[in-house]
Amino acid sequence: MINSPSLKAITFIATLKPSPADSSSEKIARDLAKELERYNISMEYVRAVDYTIAPGVEADMGDGDEWPMLREKILDADIFILSTPTWMGHMSSVAMRILERLDAELSDMDNKGRLLTFGKVAAVAVVGNEDGAHSIIADSFQALNDVGFTIPAQGATYWNGEAMHKTDYQDLDSIPEKVLQTNKTLAQNIAHLAGFLSQHNYPGEKDEQ
Amino acid sequence: MINSPSLKAITFIATLKPSPADSSSEKIARDLAKELERYNISMEYVRAVDYTIAPGVEADMGDGDEWPMLREKILDADIFILSTPTWMGHMSSVAMRILERLDAELSDMDNKGRLLTFGKVAAVAVVGNEDGAHSIIADSFQALNDVGFTIPAQGATYWNGEAMHKTDYQDLDSIPEKVLQTNKTLAQNIAHLAGFLSQHNYPGEKDEQ
Amino acid sequence: MINSPSLKAITFIATLKPSPADSSSEKIARDLAKELERYNISMEYVRAVDYTIAPGVEADMGDGDEWPMLREKILDADIFILSTPTWMGHMSSVAMRILERLDAELSDMDNKGRLLTFGKVAAVAVVGNEDGAHSIIADSFQALNDVGFTIPAQGATYWNGEAMHKTDYQDLDSIPEKVLQTNKTLAQNIAHLAGFLSQHNYPGEKDEQ
Amino acid sequence: MINSPSLKAITFIATLKPSPADSSSEKIARDLAKELERYNISMEYVRAVDYTIAPGVEADMGDGDEWPMLREKILDADIFILSTPTWMGHMSSVAMRILERLDAELSDMDNKGRLLTFGKVAAVAVVGNEDGAHSIIADSFQALNDVGFTIPAQGATYWNGEAMHKTDYQDLDSIPEKVLQTNKTLAQNIAHLAGFLSQHNYPGEKDEQ
Repeated sequence: MINSPSLKAITFIATLKPSPADSSSEKIARDLAKELERYNISMEYVRAVDYTIAPGVEADMGDGDEWPMLREKILDADIFILSTPTWMGHMSSVAMRILERLDAELSDMDNKGRLLTFGKVAAVAVVGNEDGAHSIIADSFQALNDVGFTIPAQGATYWNGEAMHKTDYQDLDSIPEKVLQTNKTLAQNIAHLAGFLSQHNYPGEKDEQ
Repeated sequence: MINSPSLKAITFIATLKPSPADSSSEKIARDLAKELERYNISMEYVRAVDYTIAPGVEADMGDGDEWPMLREKILDADIFILSTPTWMGHMSSVAMRILERLDAELSDMDNKGRLLTFGKVAAVAVVGNEDGAHSIIADSFQALNDVGFTIPAQGATYWNGEAMHKTDYQDLDSIPEKVLQTNKTLAQNIAHLAGFLSQHNYPGEKDEQ
Repeated sequence: MINSPSLKAITFIATLKPSPADSSSEKIARDLAKELERYNISMEYVRAVDYTIAPGVEADMGDGDEWPMLREKILDADIFILSTPTWMGHMSSVAMRILERLDAELSDMDNKGRLLTFGKVAAVAVVGNEDGAHSIIADSFQALNDVGFTIPAQGATYWNGEAMHKTDYQDLDSIPEKVLQTNKTLAQNIAHLAGFLSQHNYPGEKDEQ
Repeated sequence: MINSPSLKAITFIATLKPSPADSSSEKIARDLAKELERYNISMEYVRAVDYTIAPGVEADMGDGDEWPMLREKILDADIFILSTPTWMGHMSSVAMRILERLDAELSDMDNKGRLLTFGKVAAVAVVGNEDGAHSIIADSFQALNDVGFTIPAQGATYWNGEAMHKTDYQDLDSIPEKVLQTNKTLAQNIAHLAGFLSQHNYPGEKDEQ
């Protein structure tokens, strides 16, 4: 594995519940983080609902908008992780708000014509008492990739219960074995890919000729 | 057509822009409304971003939450219309917030065991300078139907421009002919189905034996 | 409930396994049918993989294509049910093939300008050992509704197991209580709506003036 | 850019039309290939509908199944590209069949516990006269990533026309400027990432301790 002593990850937790309420999407994010920390990746968490993230698709919507400060954290990190609950089969409105705000990244390039997200890796975590994870992973991969993130092999972890049941991830006695193994593989793949891309970004326009 | 002298429709407009900014999703909602009004359907509009709709999945999240008042309007209407812009191929976070709040309807039943939305018709309008309408229609039909609304034949209208272009619906010189025809068919189908269901709700548990 | 003595339903089962192999998507279709039969709805089943359904989007692709014969059955029925397994979070390729062939319905209208599917009700059944049902329901509602079918309140039934597990619906000891109740409500809603629409189709162009 | 003299790409074209009919999904695949060839990537094409790809989720379904031969080509390549038309907002049934067959990759690992697809890059091309590309990109990214492929930054190209119109990609006078630019960026990103991964695969279990 590439030696990557100083990788940073930022995890956006998209629960609908403000702190300090318990949250399954926060729990799975922290379960994944335990595996990432084995690769010397430093972790930061943003529980998005605790911040004022204005509606809109500009990098700064003014008027108390806290996105610009959160955006700086994303641009400063090598790895972006979105952790969302499942509601009606979909990601939360808080997760969708985060993706909307990332849309502004399509308008900001470096001097090689690259988005500022190029060279960063994204991964996704999804929990729900009900079905929806595959679809949420699909929707979030597409949006995150569209704005410039690279998706490592098997770039997601998730858990949901049996159809029409009510169990929450945070109420399970322990991390299900399959989820634990998925987290281990995901962490290793994130570390490997981010280790490379953080040192060898996509070349951009200047190198294209 | 069934004679339906007193049908009411409520349209939730899910633009990210607060009033009074121009909005393409408001424009297509009002274009559709012109056709609905031909069937004596009275229209009401909620530009959702102008209200405080708290994150959560209860009918009332307390603390300044304006959803309970908006919910009363939905329960009072025969027809629910969701009009949303397209961002990154998805419905807006404001639209997703509306659907999340409707999730609470699964917990409230009348004395025949029917959701309070049973007997109501839902339709969808989508605009975008870019691709996404079919997927948004899919996601919103599933969520609205899951919480009890009935979807009339060809229950959506939409417009989006050519791939990777920037034209907005509100900047078109006139309503595209195909959209106009779609609106006419949709209005007729909504009126027909809501006319029936408003008078003949699904039977519910008592009638099932 | 509307008295509907002669309603017909046709169920397309989209398993990947040819007869006579056991199939979970066939099982849930037949479990739902038991509830529909209580409303004097006659049932017919098409296990689609047993037929030659040619790739293409015309009503008849020639050359041994068996879709025209299957299409007659759909046009002869009042109710269309699609039952599909879940693979990688998506409907099967066999289900997608069925939807593709229904696309041709957009080109065939009666003398009032109505699609031949107008006046028919559609519903969906989904099974999977893994997550995907909500998304498949979304995708199939949108496609079926686009080609003219009406979707009754809570127009789907489904089952899937816990994330990353392998249990199949057909291996369960009995129909899960939640699925059974969902089937009962769905059957009642289908019967109510198809009873009406089979006798009172959408008006079409002639009535619009 | 990493020097990558011997990369191989295989493109699966998922048109519903057998050869030699003209195909928009074949055209966009070949338009993208022109950019890939600038990076010394050798191209091979599989027009999937010309082959017998049996329904099922095993690596070999027997009985005339041509997937095993096609699978060898995938395992031999460094880059996998899926090019699909849009029908009713969805990928074609032929594309879905390809993804289903790739599901079997989840059962085959090398001596380090890695899927045989680890170390390979996937990208997607979508065309349609109508809307659907973002959703198809989402669904195919999720499925391809789930079975082990890595998705480069902005890993898709696409084109669709204005809502409810009929123009095909292959009928355009020339490649739209935006599509051309997208293809150039995509080719560069594929080459960069596949150049690395082909030489530095994810570490797998042995390295994890």
